[in-house]
Amino acid sequence: MTEKPTLSGWTCPLPLRNYPTIVMGHGSGGRMMSDLIHNLFEPLLGNDLLAQMGDATVLTLPPGSDGAPCRLAFTTDSFVISPLIFPGGDIGELAVNGTVNDLAMSGARPLYLSAGFILEEGLPLETLGRVVTSFGEACRAAGVQLVAGDTKVVDKGHGDGLFINTSGIGLIPPGVNIAPGNARPGDAVLVSGTMGDHGITIMSVREGLDFFAPVESDTAPLNGLVEAMLAVTREIHCLRDATRGGLSAVLNELAVASRVGIVFEEARVPVRPAVQAACEMLGLDPLYVANEGKLVAIVPEPQAEAVLEAMRAHPYGRDAARIGTVTAEHPGLVVAKTSIGATRVVDLPAGELLPRIC
Amino acid sequence: MTEKPTLSGWTCPLPLRNYPTIVMGHGSGGRMMSDLIHNLFEPLLGNDLLAQMGDATVLTLPPGSDGAPCRLAFTTDSFVISPLIFPGGDIGELAVNGTVNDLAMSGARPLYLSAGFILEEGLPLETLGRVVTSFGEACRAAGVQLVAGDTKVVDKGHGDGLFINTSGIGLIPPGVNIAPGNARPGDAVLVSGTMGDHGITIMSVREGLDFFAPVESDTAPLNGLVEAMLAVTREIHCLRDATRGGLSAVLNELAVASRVGIVFEEARVPVRPAVQAACEMLGLDPLYVANEGKLVAIVPEPQAEAVLEAMRAHPYGRDAARIGTVTAEHPGLVVAKTSIGATRVVDLPAGELLPRIC
Repeated sequence: MTEKPTLSGWTCPLPLRNYPTIVMGHGSGGRMMSDLIHNLFEPLLGNDLLAQMGDATVLTLPPGSDGAPCRLAFTTDSFVISPLIFPGGDIGELAVNGTVNDLAMSGARPLYLSAGFILEEGLPLETLGRVVTSFGEACRAAGVQLVAGDTKVVDKGHGDGLFINTSGIGLIPPGVNIAPGNARPGDAVLVSGTMGDHGITIMSVREGLDFFAPVESDTAPLNGLVEAMLAVTREIHCLRDATRGGLSAVLNELAVASRVGIVFEEARVPVRPAVQAACEMLGLDPLYVANEGKLVAIVPEPQAEAVLEAMRAHPYGRDAARIGTVTAEHPGLVVAKTSIGATRVVDLPAGELLPRIC
Repeated sequence: MTEKPTLSGWTCPLPLRNYPTIVMGHGSGGRMMSDLIHNLFEPLLGNDLLAQMGDATVLTLPPGSDGAPCRLAFTTDSFVISPLIFPGGDIGELAVNGTVNDLAMSGARPLYLSAGFILEEGLPLETLGRVVTSFGEACRAAGVQLVAGDTKVVDKGHGDGLFINTSGIGLIPPGVNIAPGNARPGDAVLVSGTMGDHGITIMSVREGLDFFAPVESDTAPLNGLVEAMLAVTREIHCLRDATRGGLSAVLNELAVASRVGIVFEEARVPVRPAVQAACEMLGLDPLYVANEGKLVAIVPEPQAEAVLEAMRAHPYGRDAARIGTVTAEHPGLVVAKTSIGATRVVDLPAGELLPRIC
C-alpha cells in the first residue's frame, strides 16, 4: 500500500529543449513526434507491454482458477480530425473503424468499444446527432458493441467542435501470433487496396482543392478482411493499417522491428487515378499519404497466393496486390524498384503532410 | 459482411430542441446532461451492456475452448479539468485515479490503462513533463500498468492545453457481484471519508477565493481500499465513487437503480471544517460537492461493522463513517435527518456547481 504520490518536478531532456512548448510537429507522426515519445513519454511511462509497439497491445490475463489464460488486444485512439464530416465519412465512423482496425491488426476479433466525447460549447446538435448516428452504424457494420461512454463539455474556444476517443478490446484466437517483429526473409508483402485515398480527400476539402475526379475517404472496418485472411492460414506474420505516414511509414516500422529489409515494386502499389493525379498536382508521393481502410500484410511465401485470393474476394480487399518481398539484406531499410528499373530507398516520412487527418 | 454505411441524416428529438447547440449545461451531470444522454446517445448507441449504468461495465468474455468465462470491468473517462495543476494533484494523477476508481467500484482489480493525450499547440513542455511524471507515479501507486497510448496535437485556440482520456480494464474476482441495483432494505450505507474536498479546492483556485484554512483535492486510488473491504466479505452490494454531483447524486442513483429508499443522518456525514466553512461562505451544500477519492458503499447489516473497521484501518478510509440505512419505504427517494431531528428530501443536483472539475 503506497501513500499518495506528491507532484514532482521534471527536467526537460536535452533533445526536447529546442521547443519549450508543444508545436504541431509534435503530433505529425514524424521525427519530432518520435522525439517527444522517446524522450518524454517513454522514460516516464514505459514498460514491457507498451514496448510491443503494435497497433494494439496484447495482454495475457492472469489465468483463472482453471489455469487457462485469455489473450486480449487493447488499444486507444483520439480523433481530432478537421473537418468533422468529409467525403466518404465523418469523425464518428472514423473513430469506430480506427480502433476496430488497430485491434484487427493484432489478429484479434474486436468485441467492445468505449467512447469519450469532448464537446465544445456551440457545437450544433445537428452535427452531433449525425456523427453519433454514423458512430452507431459503424459499430453495427463492424460487429462491435459500445459498452462504456463518457461526455464532457468544454467552453467555447477551448475545443474544436468535437473530439472522440475510442478504446477497444478484442479477443485473440488461439494460434494467432501477429507482431511487427515477425517478418522473415522470403515473406511476401501484400497491400489490401489503393493507397492515399483518405489523406488526399481531407487535403482537398481542407485546402479547397478541386481535382478532376472526386476522391473519397476509404474509412472502413478491416476486421472482416482479417478474419477472411486468417481463415486461409494462421501463419500471418505482420499486419498494420497504413494510417499516418502511409505505406512508407508502415514498411519502415516493420523493417526496423523485424530487422529485415523490404523490397517492393512501385508500379505494383495500387493508386486510384484521381489520387495519382492529385498527388502529381501537389507534388506528393502517394506512398506517404494516409489511409483509413487499408492494411499491409506480411505472410510466408507458400501461403501468399491463397491469402491474396481471399483478400480479393472480400469487399475491402478487391484491389489487393502483392507488392514486394522481405529480404535478409539491408535490414531496417525499405527499397522501391521504380518502373524504369532503378532502385531508391524509401525513408520514414519526416512528418505527416497535414495535421489532424484523424 | 456488411457494406460500408453511408452518412445518414438525423432528426433532433423534441426534448432537445430548446438548445440548437451544445451549452455548458450539457456536461453538468444534471438534468440537461441526462436529457442529452437519454434522447441522443441512448437511442443511437444503447444496448444491454451500456444499460448496466455502473461506473464500469462488466463484460463476460466468450468462454474459451475450456469453457471458462472471464469477467472483465471496462471503463472510459475524459479529463478536461481546469487548471491542469491544483492543490493536492494534477490532471495526470486525476486521470489515473478516476479510471482506477471506476474499475474498483465494480469490485474489479484494476490492471491495465490506456491514455489518449490531446495536446494544444503552445502547451509548455514543462507542464506536460510534470503531468506525465505524475501520471506515471499514480500508475505505480495504484498498481496498474499503462499499456496503450496515443498522442494528438491540435492547433492553438482549438484545445485547452491538455485533455487526457483514460480507459481501463480490470478483472472481477469470482463471487463478487457489485451493481447499482443491488441495494436491499436494511443494508447499511457507508462513506469512506470527508465529502467535498475536491470540488471546493477547484472552486477556490478557479475563483481565486481564499479560505481560512487551505483545502486540497482528495484525488486517490481506491482499489486498495476496496480490496480491503472485499477481504472482509464478498457480500458488498453497491460501490460508487462520489464524483460529479457529490454524495447526493450517488445516493439518488443507487435509490433509483435498486428501487429502495435511503435515509441518512446529515450530522454523520464527515466534512472537513475548512470545507464546511467554505461551503457556508459560498452558500453551498457539501452533499452536492464533488470528490475524487471517496466512495459510498452499501453493505448487508450483519457485515457493516466489520467492513467499516477495515475501511478505517486503510489510509484512504480513515474517516469512514456509517451514515444511514436502506429502506423499503419511499423507493427512489433519499431522505436526510437533520441535526435538529427534522427530515428533508435530498434531490438529484440540478447540475454540477462548476464546469470542468474533472
